[in-house]
Amino acid sequence: MKVSARNVFEGIVGSVHSGTVNAEVGIELPSGDKLVAVITLESVKSLQLTPGKPVLALIKAPWVMLMTDASGIRLSARNCLAGKVTSVNAGAVNAEVVVTLPGGTELTAIVTNDAVAELGLAPGVAASAVIKASNIILGVPA
Amino acid sequence: MKVSARNVFEGIVGSVHSGTVNAEVGIELPSGDKLVAVITLESVKSLQLTPGKPVLALIKAPWVMLMTDASGIRLSARNCLAGKVTSVNAGAVNAEVVVTLPGGTELTAIVTNDAVAELGLAPGVAASAVIKASNIILGVPA
Amino acid sequence: MKVSARNVFEGIVGSVHSGTVNAEVGIELPSGDKLVAVITLESVKSLQLTPGKPVLALIKAPWVMLMTDASGIRLSARNCLAGKVTSVNAGAVNAEVVVTLPGGTELTAIVTNDAVAELGLAPGVAASAVIKASNIILGVPA
Repeated sequence: MKVSARNVFEGIVGSVHSGTVNAEVGIELPSGDKLVAVITLESVKSLQLTPGKPVLALIKAPWVMLMTDASGIRLSARNCLAGKVTSVNAGAVNAEVVVTLPGGTELTAIVTNDAVAELGLAPGVAASAVIKASNIILGVPA
Repeated sequence: MKVSARNVFEGIVGSVHSGTVNAEVGIELPSGDKLVAVITLESVKSLQLTPGKPVLALIKAPWVMLMTDASGIRLSARNCLAGKVTSVNAGAVNAEVVVTLPGGTELTAIVTNDAVAELGLAPGVAASAVIKASNIILGVPA
Repeated sequence: MKVSARNVFEGIVGSVHSGTVNAEVGIELPSGDKLVAVITLESVKSLQLTPGKPVLALIKAPWVMLMTDASGIRLSARNCLAGKVTSVNAGAVNAEVVVTLPGGTELTAIVTNDAVAELGLAPGVAASAVIKASNIILGVPA
């Protein structure tokens, strides 16, 4: 497999909660972190997702929001991974920011340069990656 | 709270319509505009979203589509905010476009330079920001 | 209609499967390819989407993931369009990659330069565009 998504996490399906059109899938990462993905019920069936099955969670970098200060707010986004900024690569408009999680996993986000300045994103700064459940693509071994 | 999302709107929950996995939340902005967000039902519960509750709607700039001519088309996207372009900051590939709404609220979109050229986006041009309901993150005071 | 979305496909509604909040809409393209979109049920009603109705599928370039090697993996993303890279326009951080489908349709993706290097994206390389159903906006003639 070779995909453009900068974030690919290996995990295990923890739970599947099915609706009529969509389903919510809980994923347990080796780090102990948990992810929640919303995918179509058809995909749950075709990938035969059941608890205990190994799964990959794919997330494109522009789908990741960064947060440096969570005080005073609680978010609807189901996924929040806390780490430290380890690199900032600024372009003309956008910047690529790498957040390294406690276990060493790297997570890449694309945010605007304005956000980099406003949040003071620089190596060593604590930051959380926030990801909506509907922005996670799941994959299983073929 | 400090987040990378360029668009943060304060509003009031107007309605909550719950499904099995997702829920649709209507938000009323002070400007009179309305937003619709689709989030997981779990988030509705954990954030205790009920009509009348103050809420923040967060939208990353790459999740905003711009439209300069809506003639001949009706879209499935539930959110459409009409305003005027007030700045265009072009990079090598992408451009950051700010649309100012009638009430003075600024909305930031990341679109390709090709789109800027094709739509003639420049200060003073009327443009609407189109946002899918599933691309809105909600937040409540902690 | 003038929109910033780089990808606009004309098709015909093939199926509508409704849930409580969302609905899954199947779209048949003239090329024989099929797309699946998840939109709110309210939009299905307001756009009066029923099988046989002409429809436009709009997809922003940053919402498209590229894959050059699908061996060993099956994805939850419902849409996968196979083609060949016909252009790569690299910026400081992001690159705009055009994939041309067998029928001649062009599809634009924004991916990071890192992904371009890692996947060896260059004109002539076979690549598939992967799109989540929840990242497709539908439009109908007004």
